[in-house]
Amino acid sequence: MQLRIPGPTPCPPQVLKAVGGQMIDHRGDKFAQIIRDITEKLQKLFQTKNDVFVLTGSGTGGMEAAVVNTLSPGDKVLALSCGFFGDRFAEIPECYGAEVKKLNFEWGKPVDPDAVRKALKEDAGIKAVLVTHNETSTGVTNDLKAISSVAKEFDKLVLVDAISSLGSIELPVDEWQCDVVVTASQKGWMVPPGLAMVSVSKRAWEAHAKAKMPRYYWDFTKAKNYLERGQTPWTPCVSTFFGLTVALDMLLAEGLSNVIARHARIADFTRRGVKSLGLSLFPEEKYASNTVTAVKAPEKLTVSKFLQVLRDEYQVVLSGGQGNLSGKIFRIGHLGWVQEKDMKEVLKAVSKALPKASA
Amino acid sequence: MQLRIPGPTPCPPQVLKAVGGQMIDHRGDKFAQIIRDITEKLQKLFQTKNDVFVLTGSGTGGMEAAVVNTLSPGDKVLALSCGFFGDRFAEIPECYGAEVKKLNFEWGKPVDPDAVRKALKEDAGIKAVLVTHNETSTGVTNDLKAISSVAKEFDKLVLVDAISSLGSIELPVDEWQCDVVVTASQKGWMVPPGLAMVSVSKRAWEAHAKAKMPRYYWDFTKAKNYLERGQTPWTPCVSTFFGLTVALDMLLAEGLSNVIARHARIADFTRRGVKSLGLSLFPEEKYASNTVTAVKAPEKLTVSKFLQVLRDEYQVVLSGGQGNLSGKIFRIGHLGWVQEKDMKEVLKAVSKALPKASA
Repeated sequence: MQLRIPGPTPCPPQVLKAVGGQMIDHRGDKFAQIIRDITEKLQKLFQTKNDVFVLTGSGTGGMEAAVVNTLSPGDKVLALSCGFFGDRFAEIPECYGAEVKKLNFEWGKPVDPDAVRKALKEDAGIKAVLVTHNETSTGVTNDLKAISSVAKEFDKLVLVDAISSLGSIELPVDEWQCDVVVTASQKGWMVPPGLAMVSVSKRAWEAHAKAKMPRYYWDFTKAKNYLERGQTPWTPCVSTFFGLTVALDMLLAEGLSNVIARHARIADFTRRGVKSLGLSLFPEEKYASNTVTAVKAPEKLTVSKFLQVLRDEYQVVLSGGQGNLSGKIFRIGHLGWVQEKDMKEVLKAVSKALPKASA
Repeated sequence: MQLRIPGPTPCPPQVLKAVGGQMIDHRGDKFAQIIRDITEKLQKLFQTKNDVFVLTGSGTGGMEAAVVNTLSPGDKVLALSCGFFGDRFAEIPECYGAEVKKLNFEWGKPVDPDAVRKALKEDAGIKAVLVTHNETSTGVTNDLKAISSVAKEFDKLVLVDAISSLGSIELPVDEWQCDVVVTASQKGWMVPPGLAMVSVSKRAWEAHAKAKMPRYYWDFTKAKNYLERGQTPWTPCVSTFFGLTVALDMLLAEGLSNVIARHARIADFTRRGVKSLGLSLFPEEKYASNTVTAVKAPEKLTVSKFLQVLRDEYQVVLSGGQGNLSGKIFRIGHLGWVQEKDMKEVLKAVSKALPKASA
């Protein structure tokens, strides 16, 4: 089976072996070693000296943590959205009583840093900028470096959904001055879902100290206090921690720059393959993501049938479009444990399934 | 290794094998089958016709979900506490702006239903009663049937932390009129941590419709809408779902009443064994839990050293006391995948380690 959705991604056998390990005491020495080791390795891969916490939950939980730990009801935030996940990130502070000023960009296009500058210039009251690094729904990678730099011109807090980018696409957290950065285990990290990983800058801690949104489960102070003892406040998702230990070693052995280069190379290979089949990319190619390729469905293609044929006849699992893009695009995930040969198989299956699902 | 803490509990090999399975599409047919199957089986074991949701997170996340989905800031709640976890349950609504009236009982003693009646009689403004079924920190099982019945005399919402009881100790959710009941995968369910399971009654849904506490990740409406499609709103902890499928079949094959009887028998065996070593139970024996036995540390025993000797020399992992009970008690978990022979080994190790850690 070629599971090539943008997460959960396939796990290497040595990761799965670790995931299936017997339980241990989450308040004992062995777990303390594991979490300290993981935290240190994540800091390397986040390219940060900031605190990094591993929270038991989905990526969306990490996004909620980013918001509730740094903001207060009534705070004005600028939420940048060019897709489904940008919309989701905007919904969270709204739900917690923030005043959300939303800057929408056409799906398939990236966030425009100049538009961000204009919005921040117009409203000095904005406290934080929320941005999706890699918009999984449209296959677009935003120019986070430029966006963060603009936000910092105005001294804003920068909260980043890097769920499907970090560890696969360049994101030097400290250099780009990102205050809270969220990723999740089932993406480029090659482990099962269950963990959200977040980095928290000094500036984010300052915001945290004044932030009044209610928080208990996701509270960074609790996470920090327990991490000092080599623990988590609540029982952690031990199996995924086991897997992460192995996967981080694999990533570090390959080397972050090599991992990033591999993702770039495979994405390029995939885009060329898609185009050679006569298909068009959904996003502007300049901003096409290196972890997920979104492809326009030809007019005669029934996407749901296409995905079913791929799965049932060729053992290839791809994703459809989300929200407004349902039926209009399909998406190929190529992040984490992936090589060119996997994409060769996927493209071959796509070429065979296309006529079978076209009118 | 005998891991005998009150969770995570050891997992049977067939569960671990499933946990180590390769990832699948969490929005595909196979996952839909899994979650529907699990939900139906959980309803049987919860003895409920209520909705049951499986949330990716720790048990504490489930407790937070119970609170934020049914209450509004300013609501008055009665929180019953006879230990560390009762205290935790009381903290959550406090943190979300509820007015928490806390009824504390001596640690080691149970919640007194008459005191609950008195408190509810005195204050008609109370909206919900929060209760810990099995207080893991003190090894006490509260008389939930009586407490819930008292709460229902006054038509209150009943929110139950049944994290370390459900599936191991009798708790017929519908018969006892419990509105939200929370448990977690790493307890009697014999699977790794990562999932909180909650049931939601009609009465809880009515409260939910009016509840104004902010919620996004833990929102029951989102969980319900996605479950109708055989999905979860956010990427689920797939590995633990795989394990749960196998574990629920094992529990149902044994039969709930047999599982409950086994826990009662093993707990009784453990208590008798502890006493035969000249040790005393921490709680009143009448309320001693069938999933965790809390034992008073003899005056000359250094608990930390005792636990270390047990672990290093006898491969037996027990827990110490939490909060105020640190250094004063130790705790033996006997829930989930456990038989008399396991407790025989534990008691033998305890008898040998006691003199080695006593002054």
